[in-house]
Amino acid sequence: MFRQRMNADEARELFLKAFAPLSDTENLPIADCDGRIIAKNITAGIDVPHYRRAAMDGFAVRACDTLGAGGNSPVVLKLAMGIEKGTCVRVHTGSPIPEGADAVVMLEDAVLRGESVEIFTQLHPGKNVGETGEDIRKGEVILKEGKKLRPCDIAVLAALGIRDIAVFRKPLVAVIPTGEELVSRENMALREGEVYETNGLMAALYIRKWGGAPRLLDIVEDDPEKIKDAISSNLDADMIITSGGTSVGKRDYVPGVVGSMGTLLVHGVGISPGKPTALGIINGKPVVCMPGYPVAGIVALYFFARAALWKLGHIPDEHDRKVRAVLSGKIPGRTGYKTFARVKLENGRAVPLAVSGAGILSSVSKADGFVIIPENVEGYDKGEEVEVVLIE
Amino acid sequence: MFRQRMNADEARELFLKAFAPLSDTENLPIADCDGRIIAKNITAGIDVPHYRRAAMDGFAVRACDTLGAGGNSPVVLKLAMGIEKGTCVRVHTGSPIPEGADAVVMLEDAVLRGESVEIFTQLHPGKNVGETGEDIRKGEVILKEGKKLRPCDIAVLAALGIRDIAVFRKPLVAVIPTGEELVSRENMALREGEVYETNGLMAALYIRKWGGAPRLLDIVEDDPEKIKDAISSNLDADMIITSGGTSVGKRDYVPGVVGSMGTLLVHGVGISPGKPTALGIINGKPVVCMPGYPVAGIVALYFFARAALWKLGHIPDEHDRKVRAVLSGKIPGRTGYKTFARVKLENGRAVPLAVSGAGILSSVSKADGFVIIPENVEGYDKGEEVEVVLIE
Repeated sequence: MFRQRMNADEARELFLKAFAPLSDTENLPIADCDGRIIAKNITAGIDVPHYRRAAMDGFAVRACDTLGAGGNSPVVLKLAMGIEKGTCVRVHTGSPIPEGADAVVMLEDAVLRGESVEIFTQLHPGKNVGETGEDIRKGEVILKEGKKLRPCDIAVLAALGIRDIAVFRKPLVAVIPTGEELVSRENMALREGEVYETNGLMAALYIRKWGGAPRLLDIVEDDPEKIKDAISSNLDADMIITSGGTSVGKRDYVPGVVGSMGTLLVHGVGISPGKPTALGIINGKPVVCMPGYPVAGIVALYFFARAALWKLGHIPDEHDRKVRAVLSGKIPGRTGYKTFARVKLENGRAVPLAVSGAGILSSVSKADGFVIIPENVEGYDKGEEVEVVLIE
Repeated sequence: MFRQRMNADEARELFLKAFAPLSDTENLPIADCDGRIIAKNITAGIDVPHYRRAAMDGFAVRACDTLGAGGNSPVVLKLAMGIEKGTCVRVHTGSPIPEGADAVVMLEDAVLRGESVEIFTQLHPGKNVGETGEDIRKGEVILKEGKKLRPCDIAVLAALGIRDIAVFRKPLVAVIPTGEELVSRENMALREGEVYETNGLMAALYIRKWGGAPRLLDIVEDDPEKIKDAISSNLDADMIITSGGTSVGKRDYVPGVVGSMGTLLVHGVGISPGKPTALGIINGKPVVCMPGYPVAGIVALYFFARAALWKLGHIPDEHDRKVRAVLSGKIPGRTGYKTFARVKLENGRAVPLAVSGAGILSSVSKADGFVIIPENVEGYDKGEEVEVVLIE
């Protein structure tokens, strides 16, 4: 068994302290930047709007010319092409306000009769006028380094006429599935003792979803030299994820290989499932060794690999999608372990999935989310309201 | 002003009832299916595992041969290549259980001495054995039509050796920005009265994020014939989104054009901002007319276009990312309107963004989320705990 079992949060902290975020950036057209992280503060090069604009359809006027106007006592102005005392100019929402005008009378408050406009309301200066720079002021830092761009932020970049910006490079993550029982889906039929590779594919897809660029490698046998070769030929990547071979059996070589190539920081963690997770650093690069059991693997991915990816890529901690729900049955914790219990949501209730072990992949697929039970909690009872972290 | 103002929920219901989901499907390799919607129930073609496997490293035995074994009184079995009375066979986690064996002794409970194995625990049949089909049973419907695939679901497909599956086609959404004040970012400098196009780009990026395939078109002038041409040449799309020209001013032709080409269901909605939103159907296809003001536009996108996209694409309603936070200041609602108030999150508090109007694009970019105030609520007070829907 494991000699050590490190507390999950301590293990994560130790691991995250042991490497630095990436510094490389790339320039991309703004339309390709949804979800990317800004690498340099962005300063507005123009005012938005860059001219005084009408906020309504109507007539631009000098506010002082409307003095005394009311519902029964209109003032009459002459419709013109320019503003001087006693004139007004037709404007549309967004169109420039002619020089000399300082307010816009809404269509509803005016009646056009031939060349004359009757105005039924008194305006103060600035009424229905969008001042230059009212949205964004030239020189303002409008979006800051480290922000994750959303479509509405990209719209702001577009409003400034910006075509491309510097974002942090996506971390490149090499995913190495290990295990001599594994075969690729290219094999049409399985022999006894063979299973299709699943964890590497799952890890690669999660890395992509979470903002990284995965490189999924071929299956590597349980052989220390071959595992070492696979890792060393992928040290151009920013992070390495291995799957399998992390327990303490005869064929579990991965943590030892990581230790021989760099530093094995952690082997054995207080998460359940996921205890045989190992964490290390090789050439300054984080290495996450997922247990081969798929449920343990996904817990290790969520708890360690995602956090490492986010640190590497300057990706701000996203709020997980969560719902609150009442448990339809008891879920036990495991003292000393952070327990990830799988639940299904049914009519607003969280139904614990009765599952035997970490080897049952289908139990994750049947689950909508995890209820996370802290180390010092014995479990949650039927009827308790819990927070469910939805599995993406 | 608008003659009508339809309740927001009623408008959405009326709109969603007026068109049908897409029926077309496509076959894709499973690695490309993250986030896609399953079009046909998926049945397991094999058992997983497809053989009895060891759940631990150790020795496969006949459970009956361990009868009476204990910590101080081992039974001794002969290490062999096959199982008969009195023999055991070395197994690794995941390896097949030899015929005749029905339990696995963990390494920790056994001592190997030459050709003999001392076993210090009594096992019941089935102990540490993964039965054939314990994870997935051949013939079982393992993933159902309409499910949105996650990486952990794709891992299940991989475990079954499935290479590609049928998913619903992504809805193709044509996005048509209108407005003669708009210019593309290809223009290096703006003249007075010109602004860069932003809403179309924003809509296209949200459509992509929400699971659709956007087609962003060139800017169309405020001219009914040109708007009509743009719509009719994009009726191969599954949905049309227009931006701008939805108010009741002289240049607001879009709702009229939609009505002339099909059915204008709604013009004027009780959402704030977003009142000038229009909704219609042309050739059975949903048309969302976003107001030109960017904040109103994003509210129309979230409230109407996203719901329509999800219906078209069979995309299950995703739970929004939400957080609960205490308001640092009062936010007023608007009677009769569903109000989308922008807030920023600071140290767990929701800070209302003091903004003048729907025209201020940067106010959305500064916001982390919306607090949605129902039609019959006057507003929320400083110190109240509210739910913040995070803007993606």
